[in-house]
Amino acid sequence: MTGSSSRPRLALQGEKSYEWAKSRMKIIDRIVKDFSRPKALPLEGIRLGICLHITKETSVLVMALKALGAELALCSANPLSIQNDIVCFLKNQEVQLFATRGESYKQYNECMLKVIRFRPDIVTDDGAELHFMVHRFWDNKIGAGTEETTSGVTRLKELESKGHLKYPVIAVNNAQTKYLFDNRHGTGQSTVDGLMRTTSVFLPGKHIVVCGYGWVGKGVASRLRGMGAIITVTEIDPIRALEAHMEGYEVCTMISACSYADIFITCTGANKIIGKEHIDIMKDGVILCNAGHFDFEIDLDYLKSQDQAPKEIRPNIQLFSINGKRVYLLASGRVINLVGAEGHPPEVMALSFANQLMSIIYLAKKLDSLESRVYDVPAHIDRRVSEYALNAFGINLEYSTDRSFSI
Amino acid sequence: MTGSSSRPRLALQGEKSYEWAKSRMKIIDRIVKDFSRPKALPLEGIRLGICLHITKETSVLVMALKALGAELALCSANPLSIQNDIVCFLKNQEVQLFATRGESYKQYNECMLKVIRFRPDIVTDDGAELHFMVHRFWDNKIGAGTEETTSGVTRLKELESKGHLKYPVIAVNNAQTKYLFDNRHGTGQSTVDGLMRTTSVFLPGKHIVVCGYGWVGKGVASRLRGMGAIITVTEIDPIRALEAHMEGYEVCTMISACSYADIFITCTGANKIIGKEHIDIMKDGVILCNAGHFDFEIDLDYLKSQDQAPKEIRPNIQLFSINGKRVYLLASGRVINLVGAEGHPPEVMALSFANQLMSIIYLAKKLDSLESRVYDVPAHIDRRVSEYALNAFGINLEYSTDRSFSI
Amino acid sequence: MTGSSSRPRLALQGEKSYEWAKSRMKIIDRIVKDFSRPKALPLEGIRLGICLHITKETSVLVMALKALGAELALCSANPLSIQNDIVCFLKNQEVQLFATRGESYKQYNECMLKVIRFRPDIVTDDGAELHFMVHRFWDNKIGAGTEETTSGVTRLKELESKGHLKYPVIAVNNAQTKYLFDNRHGTGQSTVDGLMRTTSVFLPGKHIVVCGYGWVGKGVASRLRGMGAIITVTEIDPIRALEAHMEGYEVCTMISACSYADIFITCTGANKIIGKEHIDIMKDGVILCNAGHFDFEIDLDYLKSQDQAPKEIRPNIQLFSINGKRVYLLASGRVINLVGAEGHPPEVMALSFANQLMSIIYLAKKLDSLESRVYDVPAHIDRRVSEYALNAFGINLEYSTDRSFSI
Amino acid sequence: MTGSSSRPRLALQGEKSYEWAKSRMKIIDRIVKDFSRPKALPLEGIRLGICLHITKETSVLVMALKALGAELALCSANPLSIQNDIVCFLKNQEVQLFATRGESYKQYNECMLKVIRFRPDIVTDDGAELHFMVHRFWDNKIGAGTEETTSGVTRLKELESKGHLKYPVIAVNNAQTKYLFDNRHGTGQSTVDGLMRTTSVFLPGKHIVVCGYGWVGKGVASRLRGMGAIITVTEIDPIRALEAHMEGYEVCTMISACSYADIFITCTGANKIIGKEHIDIMKDGVILCNAGHFDFEIDLDYLKSQDQAPKEIRPNIQLFSINGKRVYLLASGRVINLVGAEGHPPEVMALSFANQLMSIIYLAKKLDSLESRVYDVPAHIDRRVSEYALNAFGINLEYSTDRSFSI
Repeated sequence: MTGSSSRPRLALQGEKSYEWAKSRMKIIDRIVKDFSRPKALPLEGIRLGICLHITKETSVLVMALKALGAELALCSANPLSIQNDIVCFLKNQEVQLFATRGESYKQYNECMLKVIRFRPDIVTDDGAELHFMVHRFWDNKIGAGTEETTSGVTRLKELESKGHLKYPVIAVNNAQTKYLFDNRHGTGQSTVDGLMRTTSVFLPGKHIVVCGYGWVGKGVASRLRGMGAIITVTEIDPIRALEAHMEGYEVCTMISACSYADIFITCTGANKIIGKEHIDIMKDGVILCNAGHFDFEIDLDYLKSQDQAPKEIRPNIQLFSINGKRVYLLASGRVINLVGAEGHPPEVMALSFANQLMSIIYLAKKLDSLESRVYDVPAHIDRRVSEYALNAFGINLEYSTDRSFSI
Repeated sequence: MTGSSSRPRLALQGEKSYEWAKSRMKIIDRIVKDFSRPKALPLEGIRLGICLHITKETSVLVMALKALGAELALCSANPLSIQNDIVCFLKNQEVQLFATRGESYKQYNECMLKVIRFRPDIVTDDGAELHFMVHRFWDNKIGAGTEETTSGVTRLKELESKGHLKYPVIAVNNAQTKYLFDNRHGTGQSTVDGLMRTTSVFLPGKHIVVCGYGWVGKGVASRLRGMGAIITVTEIDPIRALEAHMEGYEVCTMISACSYADIFITCTGANKIIGKEHIDIMKDGVILCNAGHFDFEIDLDYLKSQDQAPKEIRPNIQLFSINGKRVYLLASGRVINLVGAEGHPPEVMALSFANQLMSIIYLAKKLDSLESRVYDVPAHIDRRVSEYALNAFGINLEYSTDRSFSI
Repeated sequence: MTGSSSRPRLALQGEKSYEWAKSRMKIIDRIVKDFSRPKALPLEGIRLGICLHITKETSVLVMALKALGAELALCSANPLSIQNDIVCFLKNQEVQLFATRGESYKQYNECMLKVIRFRPDIVTDDGAELHFMVHRFWDNKIGAGTEETTSGVTRLKELESKGHLKYPVIAVNNAQTKYLFDNRHGTGQSTVDGLMRTTSVFLPGKHIVVCGYGWVGKGVASRLRGMGAIITVTEIDPIRALEAHMEGYEVCTMISACSYADIFITCTGANKIIGKEHIDIMKDGVILCNAGHFDFEIDLDYLKSQDQAPKEIRPNIQLFSINGKRVYLLASGRVINLVGAEGHPPEVMALSFANQLMSIIYLAKKLDSLESRVYDVPAHIDRRVSEYALNAFGINLEYSTDRSFSI
Repeated sequence: MTGSSSRPRLALQGEKSYEWAKSRMKIIDRIVKDFSRPKALPLEGIRLGICLHITKETSVLVMALKALGAELALCSANPLSIQNDIVCFLKNQEVQLFATRGESYKQYNECMLKVIRFRPDIVTDDGAELHFMVHRFWDNKIGAGTEETTSGVTRLKELESKGHLKYPVIAVNNAQTKYLFDNRHGTGQSTVDGLMRTTSVFLPGKHIVVCGYGWVGKGVASRLRGMGAIITVTEIDPIRALEAHMEGYEVCTMISACSYADIFITCTGANKIIGKEHIDIMKDGVILCNAGHFDFEIDLDYLKSQDQAPKEIRPNIQLFSINGKRVYLLASGRVINLVGAEGHPPEVMALSFANQLMSIIYLAKKLDSLESRVYDVPAHIDRRVSEYALNAFGINLEYSTDRSFSI
């Protein structure tokens, strides 16, 4: 899409995107101001290795970290989500950045290695790929980390339970101000956005199956219903199934839903939620789409085994012909909100990244005093982020909370 | 309302109410069946002291406990919520029951004392009034307890933290299958019901302030919006305030809301949420109503100080004239869903009471092995209740969960 | 329910109910003020014959008509919807009123005849029963009429099309300020109210079939969804079916819906919408309920043929045992919002009755100049009512509309 | 965006877009089949002049018209909404097409003239620009027309009322199956789509003002609320204002809304709804956006007078600095759903275009028998379209409607 654009033009576009996102992310601005007040910058001399989706919102976090004194190296959490204008802009800002949109798996790994060779003190990751690579190439230089996603935290906790975790990691995902808003409302909106941008399909009256009713599923179901769709939820957890039922969603098995559903969206974090046994009995013209972090929720191997040469209908729509039936796969089964749209809106990323920012400052201070465990975001940081947010949205609490605050 | 009805007619009405509730509470039936299978009844020889709202749903729990072998004595958690037909029905069933609708505070206490004198092994309470009275008249006979409400659990945890708790208590309120459904959906629906029965006020376009955005506030706000009202939320907790904001509710201070609101509903569990400073600046014709357990959320003393002789407009509507302004108070500031309607619908009480039932069976088994602490409902019971519920609602999970199960 | 209450106490209760309704129906007050300003009262010397549901809201209309100079006689549009306290209050106000709650069909007809013998100039009706009786006992004294309901207007238009209509009738039902609000939002809310008061059934997750998607069906479906139910719509009109589909409701045939529905609500105005072929295949425990004007939408004959002695479970719930299956019928198949609750809320009745009031004033002025046709409410009255309403609700339009106005 | 793409590649992309839209517009397919059945094609020998937005959906209509025998010439209803891949595809299909994305006003007029010079028998327009140009260059060859939009119909009715209309025009916009779905649900969804694609702004909790509560305003308000926004409606019509109020929207004046609103969306069809008096008191960072057909609803002259060099932040976002305040204008004030997204979804365009298609067939048959008036779509066509739609969506009516049908 950007083939013929020259780099300076892209960098200029990137700067504008950065400015636009920044104007929507006042929380970050405010934190930078509050923590720059004393003479010493809190991240002076700290080296950061960052693996996040390279979006306009990430550029706001990166520039904030720089402003607080950090030196940093950056790679991408997903080769398909890289925004080239942001890459150019950040390079112009003298950020060490290793990422090219559409890079191969090998290049992608190479980029992560470059970030490790940068010898960061703290590693920030989205999905735990970088954390795992660090563990493989461990050289006891790295002091701490943060992790953005549910999937990543799950993987790190497994590592911890086996006694293999080699440095303290803050599970940013577990902050209330992260998962209550980012996972639910951020993914909810951006998944609807991704679905509409990719397909421009009409939502009112469509039967849409939301697989999984965690925070992501809750957000996606709620927003799609708000757009007029008729939602069915599938779940394996009985309490969540009951929650969905009482919110007025149809709850049934995948097999039952296949007979009538127009669209499926996976939100489980689990493997092959949509498999052969489902695809074989779906309706002609069905649309498959994934809102989870990894691309394994839909059985891509089965699809490819049935049609070796799927037709690319539009960008991010592949048509598989399976026994005379048309099955449309969106974004190659990758996360639809990032690949098919722009990821979470800036206002909600501001909440997640405020947790990242304050967690990194916290870690920088405590580098030597924490154990090699997966920590929750400290409660006082979580609460403080919510206060910054209310302030940015112009909302007054019933009682003012003028407590003094320090990380 | 029932003045001239004879007792047998009331008992017959009570029996029908019990049958109606039972037909909606299949979960309880099923648990009774499952736990009666072995020869020995699980509550054989156990004496229960119960303080709950005397409603048709409670009669279903009571009859289930009897069927499982328990002996029991019963008083009411609120003199105004007693349903006389149920009283007559239960007395006919040879349940020891001490309660009269509209009884005085003294009589109400007297009834609780009678339950204590029954010398129960296990005490089940709703609000912790009975637990506190037991503690005052302690005679080391009582072995364990359960508690139904948020307010009650809070009070018992205070007792525990001071080292004064004298027996183990299971906080039924803290079961996910209780608070996710009973507090949110049960109170949500029955508060709308109570408001409409009491006032028949038109909801579309009304500005309604929901004070507090815990589970009860969430439920009440959501259902009132569903009925067409415009909701404002007031909160003191910043994270909850942010949640309300992102659900699309106006969030502001009580003082700001007073200038435009038509109706206020308190859902906080806290004292004098609506006070002089608010009442003085409210609009003419404003309606005040409480959905919390206790009647202290609205400053009744202030209302009475301004108008010693409020006019009773309809049952449960008092008109206070304050400086030429009309202020309507519903249900004397008592909990609107129980006093103005019939409390939670049977289907949702079935969830709470399934937790009560299974917790009591659990306690009966462990009477000697638990410490004097406030316990959560064991996770396997919580989950099992959700499975019973899905079964009763005819819902299939993605995967069947045919694990063997024992309490 | 009111057996032992003395008449004066009932009359006092009626007065309070009237005052309460009046405080919610400011529009009526304002119209009375505006039209009383000149010395001559607009209805001086006019005799009105009125057949409406005898509710607190009707008492507000009646008192307004009296205040504007009319003499009137009143009977009830439905023997089951009569509120006795209002009867007593109106009799105390020297209104000629012929109605007793629960009166037999013969008595009910007798009451209508008494209103006709009062020799009204203008007849106001709800359902067209009185209009038809007037036509049978016609004595060329009656000059004009108004009609409140869809069903009634349909019947009168049939009369008109055959050339049998004997005086001009204003179809109040056809005013936008009537059907957009009364039929949709008034019936919507009060049907939910009636359903909850009668059954206290839990709505979240319930499968409810709304038969018919006219204004009433639209309102009922929308509010029940707002309470958490899962709505299916059945329709015979393809455009309305498409509207329901795009609002996100399941649309299917009655036969399909019978396999899964928990509750059916008829809103069609048509005959035997729920018949043998449906009842025979419904689920055990199904609830049947009617929101239309007449009690013929559910095939009561079939129900009675299958169980001659249905059990009265609670007031307004009858249990029919049909081949071992339980079928619950609410309010004997009569209109649930009036029989099971209090009918439309006062705020919305104020809109309908403002149209009645201004149409009657208009007819009084034009008694000799209109043809024997069914007229719509004049557009300037319709608009004026909406302006009164906005004013009463404290809402400002984008531009003020200070046009002078006369009927 | 497509600068370097070669024409064949674009044409291929266009074909895929056409195929994708066609797979979502089964109604059109079915109509073509039904009307091709007899040997003679119904549009054989008919010349059509068409001025519509050049989108993938329009290509489906165009190909259907061709398949039914028509010869046609095509220009665009808006220079900014032209999709280049579709242009290339249609040219490859030997359609005479005069349109280039971003063409100047002069070129745009030139294209319309070329369509007129094609000497069509029937003219199909969207906005009535072409109809007006035909009237200026009238040569009594053109026999009839159709018009797609509210704005266009209004203009043509003015022409008619002055006796200047020179041929019969069918107001496709006035079909129920058009305005109930296209204007409300089509614009509703695509406006949300356009807003998100253009800005990626977070919607939950945002205060959004919807100016105008006609069908477009109703759809936009409903969908934005479904996405979590808090909606305020402004209206000049009292009945519509009352409707908005009872749907639970805040209703107030523009001036009041300016103090708190984050985003404004105009849906009125009227001139300068947002003017100096509003812009001057709006908040910093406010976003202005138009969903109406013409670009005059926001006072662009005033904006430009205050900042001659607005900054282009992203495609379709201009930043005006006005007295130190940031005002963001989307899509240069042009219709956001077409300029910022892809216009209505194909499923809903299928409804509008089914009306177009069947109206054109009807006109072709009646070319000599209609008067020079603005006609509604014949009711039997309207109904038939709804039946085609239900069929396409797999929905069954309560009763089958197997009436024979001919245009």
